[in-house]
Amino acid sequence: MTAFDALMAHARETQALVQVAGRLGWDQETMMPRGAARQRGEEMAAMESVLHARRVDARVAGWLAELDGADLDAQAQAQLRHIRRSHDRASKVPADLAARIARVTSEAQGTWAEARGADDFAAFAPTLEEVITLKREEGQALANGGDVYDAMLADYEPGTTGAELEAMFGALRPELAALRAAVRAADAPPKLSGTFDEAAQMKLTRKLARTFGYDMTHGRVDKAVHPFSSGSGLDVRITTRTSAEDPFNCFYSTIHEVGHAAYEQNINRDYLLTPLGEGVSMGVHESQSRIYENQIGRSRAFTGWLYGQMRDMFGDFGIADEDAFYACVNRVSDGYIRTEADELQYNLHVLMRFDLERALMAGDLQVADLEAAWNDRFEADFGFVVDKPSNGVLQDVHWSVGLFGYFPTYSLGNVYAGCLHEALRSAVPDLDSHLAQGDTSPATDWLRENVQSHGGLYEPRDVIARARGADPSEAPLLAYLREKFTTIYGL
Amino acid sequence: MTAFDALMAHARETQALVQVAGRLGWDQETMMPRGAARQRGEEMAAMESVLHARRVDARVAGWLAELDGADLDAQAQAQLRHIRRSHDRASKVPADLAARIARVTSEAQGTWAEARGADDFAAFAPTLEEVITLKREEGQALANGGDVYDAMLADYEPGTTGAELEAMFGALRPELAALRAAVRAADAPPKLSGTFDEAAQMKLTRKLARTFGYDMTHGRVDKAVHPFSSGSGLDVRITTRTSAEDPFNCFYSTIHEVGHAAYEQNINRDYLLTPLGEGVSMGVHESQSRIYENQIGRSRAFTGWLYGQMRDMFGDFGIADEDAFYACVNRVSDGYIRTEADELQYNLHVLMRFDLERALMAGDLQVADLEAAWNDRFEADFGFVVDKPSNGVLQDVHWSVGLFGYFPTYSLGNVYAGCLHEALRSAVPDLDSHLAQGDTSPATDWLRENVQSHGGLYEPRDVIARARGADPSEAPLLAYLREKFTTIYGL
Repeated sequence: MTAFDALMAHARETQALVQVAGRLGWDQETMMPRGAARQRGEEMAAMESVLHARRVDARVAGWLAELDGADLDAQAQAQLRHIRRSHDRASKVPADLAARIARVTSEAQGTWAEARGADDFAAFAPTLEEVITLKREEGQALANGGDVYDAMLADYEPGTTGAELEAMFGALRPELAALRAAVRAADAPPKLSGTFDEAAQMKLTRKLARTFGYDMTHGRVDKAVHPFSSGSGLDVRITTRTSAEDPFNCFYSTIHEVGHAAYEQNINRDYLLTPLGEGVSMGVHESQSRIYENQIGRSRAFTGWLYGQMRDMFGDFGIADEDAFYACVNRVSDGYIRTEADELQYNLHVLMRFDLERALMAGDLQVADLEAAWNDRFEADFGFVVDKPSNGVLQDVHWSVGLFGYFPTYSLGNVYAGCLHEALRSAVPDLDSHLAQGDTSPATDWLRENVQSHGGLYEPRDVIARARGADPSEAPLLAYLREKFTTIYGL
Repeated sequence: MTAFDALMAHARETQALVQVAGRLGWDQETMMPRGAARQRGEEMAAMESVLHARRVDARVAGWLAELDGADLDAQAQAQLRHIRRSHDRASKVPADLAARIARVTSEAQGTWAEARGADDFAAFAPTLEEVITLKREEGQALANGGDVYDAMLADYEPGTTGAELEAMFGALRPELAALRAAVRAADAPPKLSGTFDEAAQMKLTRKLARTFGYDMTHGRVDKAVHPFSSGSGLDVRITTRTSAEDPFNCFYSTIHEVGHAAYEQNINRDYLLTPLGEGVSMGVHESQSRIYENQIGRSRAFTGWLYGQMRDMFGDFGIADEDAFYACVNRVSDGYIRTEADELQYNLHVLMRFDLERALMAGDLQVADLEAAWNDRFEADFGFVVDKPSNGVLQDVHWSVGLFGYFPTYSLGNVYAGCLHEALRSAVPDLDSHLAQGDTSPATDWLRENVQSHGGLYEPRDVIARARGADPSEAPLLAYLREKFTTIYGL
């Protein structure tokens, strides 16, 4: 067996174990009996310990060294790039630091949940301080003298830097804030009212999943408190949620998760259970969920079809016609909560988190000043005041569990979705005539071929650049949002 | 850290991974999308490879050697016994033989299923030959010069020998055959007819599970083609099945699996995720499922209560009263299939498999002669002729997947259940008055205290001997069956 074969055999087994760990996570959120949490914690820790040992395995270093400079094709080189990155990442962080981070963040999540329940940021501040200290230490180990925040970003979006994101987001922010202000000053479209049978929502949501190309023979749809997609390759499961008053939440959660899941299901099957057999980054992943959910799912053409589906399922629900339904689906309302934000305001929520967490990591912002900084920034961008920490600085779980560098990938995904949507429209000029019939296949086929099938073959930025035929830019997203919301709001 | 602490930390992590692998098995039978089978195969193989590497880990051998002769309490000694057994077992079988067995049995299961579908034993015979050759080779490696079949038994029932089972089963067989013949010559009780709503069956089956002490906060009930129990400790799940015509199948599958699950749930929590934290053997496990299902669940007193429950749920279903219902539940009918057999005939099915597989392993019976040997033995014990291989030698999956030494644990479990039932009745003389009210707690409490809580602390035989106050014997089971069926059938 050559070094490459040996390395790939090892990597395949590791990827299979990654899938197992992911399946445990799915089970925990959907099926696990509530009394099993403590045991599950030990099971997950054991899997993590096995995976860590495999990543730092000295044989991996040996095989990699042996293959250094070897004449390999692009696919093999990409496999090596992923394996080397994972090996380096795991090897750079001292085991006792990794263990401390695991322990502290595991407890911090509980502390955060309590503090949020009590609307008491001060109760969470010391814990957050500890998490930041440890994550900064980890970032320094990873950065090796370079920028600490960039090293953190590399966990989620390899090849992207804080400076690049700052430039991109800096261009977005004033435009989004201005568009938001104009929209909020205009008359609001109708709001959905009444109740919608939850079993019927699940029935329609499964139809929507299939409509967007979700492959049920390699997946399933269940309910979870927070919808998510889980798994790669031949077993990619999604979850959604229902609320009688808000069927859009169910439908658009499903379409969003189908975007993530379709990415994983549509990767070239030659990459199955190899490092190339997973979505390449959080940003590219989010580009798929967002373009499914927003640019396609919330388009005038597709919502026209959805309106008919909802009428068939629920009868007259008080929205007069397709145009009113389109405006209703895309209604812009004031709100504190990122996860409930509409397409127009969502990025403003993310941009402030990016600036705040980057300042925290750089030491330019102290935890003691974080709540005030959050509230000031929120008022500046949204025009009203945060009423309580659970609607403000305590709303997201991310920081408590050590996810620094993760937030910006949400907006990067939206930017990427904007780029892909522009290219898609140009490649499929008559897309709307298909969407109006509930046929998303010209869009999902294009995305499969140009983005999803590649898996981890190209670097994240290059995936988008190849599909777009130009470097990623925030301009298409901005143009799309401006056009969409000025039309809906008659600006 | 002492050698014992290090060994136990390692063992805990191994046990956690065993639970993870078990959860994958549960998922495969209940939730997994059908297109995921190939990927799941790789995931399971990766888990097996990790577990095998942990079991043969040289550090385990080192810790065990260091602890040889150490002054440890009974609990610690029992932990060491299990760890040593598992380490020895894994170390004795050459890796390439283990890999060949895994590969051949994995394919053999498919070959068996096809042959069964085609009712063609000859199509399966060469594969079975190959499985037997490999398993015999494994048995020789494990036996180290001793009896090969005994070495196989040790995988499922440590401490039991083929000779002991032969003596026990030899005493059972003529008595059971004679009782069977007498019963079949008498008038049969009424048979259940009509259809029973399957959702209502699931509702009542969940009530039955709780009635038998199944802890839903540490478990859940789903449907599966072949009911099973899965997991240990804080997460023990069961499955059942429904058929509109046969609600007893649903209810008694559930009660059977609750017996297995209660054993796992009721083990001393100090043993959680250690080698003592699992049921000690297949035989003792089956004693719990069988005593729940038969001696308690099919008793006159309990069926009286169940009759009322079924009347409440399904209305009048054509059985006149509790006595008729009791007879109906315990009806003895001719049948080819082990898994559908009643309490009286079940062991006759198992005893023939024990004799046949032992002869196969000893080389006293050739695969070419197996079908004829099966059919002859069946006719001798049951009084009628096997009509086709799928009703005969091809009915069970066990041999195709290499499970030799497993079948006898079913009957050993029944024998153990007989012993425990005798002791339970003597400890709780008024048990029937509780069962008649649907209160199984005096029985399940006794079993928890005397059997289940011990987990792997004692050797299987000793668990039963301690609970019974005497060595295990087939006599109580025989006496119980004689009394029960002569009464029902008025012999």
